[in-house]
Amino acid sequence: MNKILSDKVINRLTLYHSILTDYIEKKIEYISSPQIAELLHVDNTQVRKDIALLGYKGKCKVGYKAYDLKVLIEETLKFKTVKTAFIVGAGNLGMALAKYDNFEAYGFNISALFDNSPEKIGQKINEKEVFNLKELPRLAEKFGAKIAILTVPRAYAQEVTEFLIKSGIQYIWNFTPCVLNVPSEIQIWNENLIGNFLQFTVNHSVNDN
Amino acid sequence: MNKILSDKVINRLTLYHSILTDYIEKKIEYISSPQIAELLHVDNTQVRKDIALLGYKGKCKVGYKAYDLKVLIEETLKFKTVKTAFIVGAGNLGMALAKYDNFEAYGFNISALFDNSPEKIGQKINEKEVFNLKELPRLAEKFGAKIAILTVPRAYAQEVTEFLIKSGIQYIWNFTPCVLNVPSEIQIWNENLIGNFLQFTVNHSVNDN
Repeated sequence: MNKILSDKVINRLTLYHSILTDYIEKKIEYISSPQIAELLHVDNTQVRKDIALLGYKGKCKVGYKAYDLKVLIEETLKFKTVKTAFIVGAGNLGMALAKYDNFEAYGFNISALFDNSPEKIGQKINEKEVFNLKELPRLAEKFGAKIAILTVPRAYAQEVTEFLIKSGIQYIWNFTPCVLNVPSEIQIWNENLIGNFLQFTVNHSVNDN
Repeated sequence: MNKILSDKVINRLTLYHSILTDYIEKKIEYISSPQIAELLHVDNTQVRKDIALLGYKGKCKVGYKAYDLKVLIEETLKFKTVKTAFIVGAGNLGMALAKYDNFEAYGFNISALFDNSPEKIGQKINEKEVFNLKELPRLAEKFGAKIAILTVPRAYAQEVTEFLIKSGIQYIWNFTPCVLNVPSEIQIWNENLIGNFLQFTVNHSVNDN
């Protein structure tokens, strides 16, 4: 399975995965595409198409085996490939992400946090230590970490990014509301929370009236 | 401007908006599409197309007026329309979002937080009070809040969602890793953080090798 999946397909597959996890927890063996479609308020045809992309065919009138489909999604999205990452910035958002146990299920190994505040350095959050930012280059090499999850305040975002790049970080998951200026070989994923939600409010005309 | 903009266009427009905010702070008057494209590692043609959708034309060799383009994006994405929202769940993520001042610039008015933990109730986070979850129906009516930002632990997500709907909430920005089961008239935006990032790692083959 080496074809490139579109962003939207990957996004939906992870939602199907959440649903399957629930089903399996509840010991429900089979799931049908209309059941998935209804939970996500999407079209049934869409769900069937996405799952067909994985090369999996359900049984007529019974649907898909929840466990098999879950494993197939995990293989397709490489959940078993360990992706070592650092959280840079141990504020509320950094701490929330450090406590987010789901990361591991997806193959993300958050091996440490970094901050420059003396009160935070040395703390442990969900068994992950907060280190002095200065130690990042050494620890990036030691742990083989190439991914940084950036949760520093806006004012430090660019400066810290340049330091991360010098330290060998190649992939930055940017939670700051800044657009970072980086060389083209560095991959940035702008989380852009507000942009995501605006997609929703703009097209649904959410307002106070 | 009543045409429906695609999710991707809206997402990029908010990123352009961040860049323009930086430019204006730095008192740079003009910005060109190649400058935007370079910062975002996207194609220049794409940027020009997006901006043309807004009906704005830059000046040859000078580019766009940063201030005008910023205002135009704000109008298009309805930043000035106040969208009253509650944060439900005052854990780390809820607190991080409550402290995120940028929401206001985008028209989101986070008027209160809710939790059921006695230690949290009554606290103020960024001048927003944490109320007992039981008070939500009354306050939703009082403030005219129709949006809830859901940041409760996974185990309570479905139960709290049902309570929100009974309280008149119509739009749920779901940060929990659960797919919520809601009636079709309720709008759910699944933030699905990990799904977003996986789009990035799957197609770039990020791994530890």
